[in-house]
Amino acid sequence: MRSETTHGIHLSHKIAGMKTNRRNFIRTTGLLAIASTASIESVFATSAAFPSKNKKNGLSLSFVPHELQLKHVFTLANSSRKTTPDVLTKIDFQGYTGYGEASMPPYLGESIESVIRFLSKLDLNQFTDPFQIEKIMHYVDSVDEGNCAAKAAVDIALHDLTGKIMKQPWHNIWGFDKEKTPNTSFTIGIDTPEVVRQKVAEAEPYKILKVKLGRETDKMMIETIRSVSDKPICVDVNQGWPDRSRALEMIYWLKEKGVVFVEQPLPKTAIDDNAWLTQNSPLPIIGDEAVQRLADVKKAWGVYSGINIKLMKCAGMREAHQMLTAAKALGMKVMIGCMTETSCAISAAAQLSPNADWADLDGNLLISNDPYTGMEIKQGKICLTNESGIGIDVKEKLF
Amino acid sequence: MRSETTHGIHLSHKIAGMKTNRRNFIRTTGLLAIASTASIESVFATSAAFPSKNKKNGLSLSFVPHELQLKHVFTLANSSRKTTPDVLTKIDFQGYTGYGEASMPPYLGESIESVIRFLSKLDLNQFTDPFQIEKIMHYVDSVDEGNCAAKAAVDIALHDLTGKIMKQPWHNIWGFDKEKTPNTSFTIGIDTPEVVRQKVAEAEPYKILKVKLGRETDKMMIETIRSVSDKPICVDVNQGWPDRSRALEMIYWLKEKGVVFVEQPLPKTAIDDNAWLTQNSPLPIIGDEAVQRLADVKKAWGVYSGINIKLMKCAGMREAHQMLTAAKALGMKVMIGCMTETSCAISAAAQLSPNADWADLDGNLLISNDPYTGMEIKQGKICLTNESGIGIDVKEKLF
Repeated sequence: MRSETTHGIHLSHKIAGMKTNRRNFIRTTGLLAIASTASIESVFATSAAFPSKNKKNGLSLSFVPHELQLKHVFTLANSSRKTTPDVLTKIDFQGYTGYGEASMPPYLGESIESVIRFLSKLDLNQFTDPFQIEKIMHYVDSVDEGNCAAKAAVDIALHDLTGKIMKQPWHNIWGFDKEKTPNTSFTIGIDTPEVVRQKVAEAEPYKILKVKLGRETDKMMIETIRSVSDKPICVDVNQGWPDRSRALEMIYWLKEKGVVFVEQPLPKTAIDDNAWLTQNSPLPIIGDEAVQRLADVKKAWGVYSGINIKLMKCAGMREAHQMLTAAKALGMKVMIGCMTETSCAISAAAQLSPNADWADLDGNLLISNDPYTGMEIKQGKICLTNESGIGIDVKEKLF
Repeated sequence: MRSETTHGIHLSHKIAGMKTNRRNFIRTTGLLAIASTASIESVFATSAAFPSKNKKNGLSLSFVPHELQLKHVFTLANSSRKTTPDVLTKIDFQGYTGYGEASMPPYLGESIESVIRFLSKLDLNQFTDPFQIEKIMHYVDSVDEGNCAAKAAVDIALHDLTGKIMKQPWHNIWGFDKEKTPNTSFTIGIDTPEVVRQKVAEAEPYKILKVKLGRETDKMMIETIRSVSDKPICVDVNQGWPDRSRALEMIYWLKEKGVVFVEQPLPKTAIDDNAWLTQNSPLPIIGDEAVQRLADVKKAWGVYSGINIKLMKCAGMREAHQMLTAAKALGMKVMIGCMTETSCAISAAAQLSPNADWADLDGNLLISNDPYTGMEIKQGKICLTNESGIGIDVKEKLF
């Protein structure tokens, strides 16, 4: 079995601030099943294709699992959870360190074990120039399909690293106007009228409310919010409306209630129906589940009014920036979204926000164990720092 | 009459290396008509809207006309010329200098006087952060429509400046792989078979030949080249074929002769015909005259297989990079082209070339008074330097 520190890959086993040995780590993160079937090497060790020689001047990738503790229980249609699996990364190069992150909400198919398995296969040490981001990410993409959160964790760390070498934050490097950052929305979950009213009160600092619809309770939710707030609302249906005509009726009703856009109202596979709805809707229709990576932008044109870009879907900042540029060139609206994430991935996504129409970047506010500080929300508006790279500071050193 | 050096704008009057007073300069550059009708201030002085206070920490723009001397007479359908009007720019900021350029081949409608008039209207001194490229270029765009070469001269200087501050060339900042630069094509003008054969011999170092077609002599030109060379040929028709069916016939013939693509075969206004041709053509059809700026990319999708991006058409590197990104996201081919230019604008355009399919960046090779060195062609291939910004050095200091 290989050493965990060979070949420039350093595995640190420390979860939520608690030092742990390998076996504890495995238990804690639910990897026991894998471990007990003797495939532990495939999770922790480097792949067979890994070169035996370690370049001193190459990029050095490290990563550590970091289960995110949610401040409140997160409820979805068929489940609820109090944690989000997450892996933190860093790339060291010539005295500089770039930070990255992979967040894996369970419904996207990645997990701590899949991310560790993927990152362990990578030989970033073969690269001696971190500015070759396209070449490096092309290699990372070629190692295996999918694994977008794991890939984003590499891409974000590369951007943080190169931004630090250039001594500029990426919003500057991209030439954006940092004063143009949008307000972020704050999500109100589906709940009883009493809890909804309480959540709206908690959302006082935020200027836009986001509501998840797609149930029997849709109108009740909106009416409850409207009984206590006249803030703009954006609506995320998560493919929850099966019928386009009823969807259109609902959208007309929502427009009357001060809703500003509707995200993924119909199933992503119903392309013609989504196009029909977009053509007839009085509100912008935003594609989320239908739009994962750059190649999906051209497919979304004519089907949706805009797209929701998330770093964990599109493998990082490089492709996110390309998606933003392409969507804007096509006259589409752009929303920058997130998962439950630390200030690392949130601050990385926020670098793009000056050129987005809307932002939903509240993921770091939902967790209690954020090891970083970075982008802040002030009076509901995203405020970017002048710090280099993705603009974060390490509050608690985990690796 | 205002001083020529107030408000951070410094006008230097020196043409093709020759110092000159204002009156000589005006004669030399054909501005006498304007001067004699008493509007000389509108050319040389700053606009009325110009603020009276000069910020010490603001951007300082200077420019100098520099008529490009062509090594060979350049022949078009109805004219021939031995010079190209050109204006060199620089932006100074905190000890750094960024260089830019506007090249104005007469058929594009800009001139030395229009560029000077436009640049004189700009108050870049109001900006104290050169990284706010989007904000600055939005302001520059708002001053007047058109004037794309003049705008490019500002944008290129800003990129050179910020690249130098970050100590990186733009191909690195954009994350491109500089090994992926394409071969540049070399243009063979319409001429007698004897001269054409001689030009093909001169083009020995180049791996792709570019031929201007759209006359009675089209087949003769191709056959003459093929009698002495089997290099790939690309064809630029400059809207010269009026009929789509005959164009398609010709393209089938060209394919047999080893032509790789056809640029702007039909008039740019014939959108349906161009779309039909693209759909039926065995070779890629590239839009040039039809595609000026970013907004034209989405119009080109479905009408052309690819686009020809030129800095002087699209107002500089920022928009060129956006056009490249958008076109690639749409699955379109991209060619990076140029005018007759110094190594300044050519090296700026070359920064984009690693992600282009084809390049036609021979403009600096056609002139005898290039004050800069930068991107070089080695065995036909574009070779980028590691120097910061747009990667040029000043060979002859003109201002």
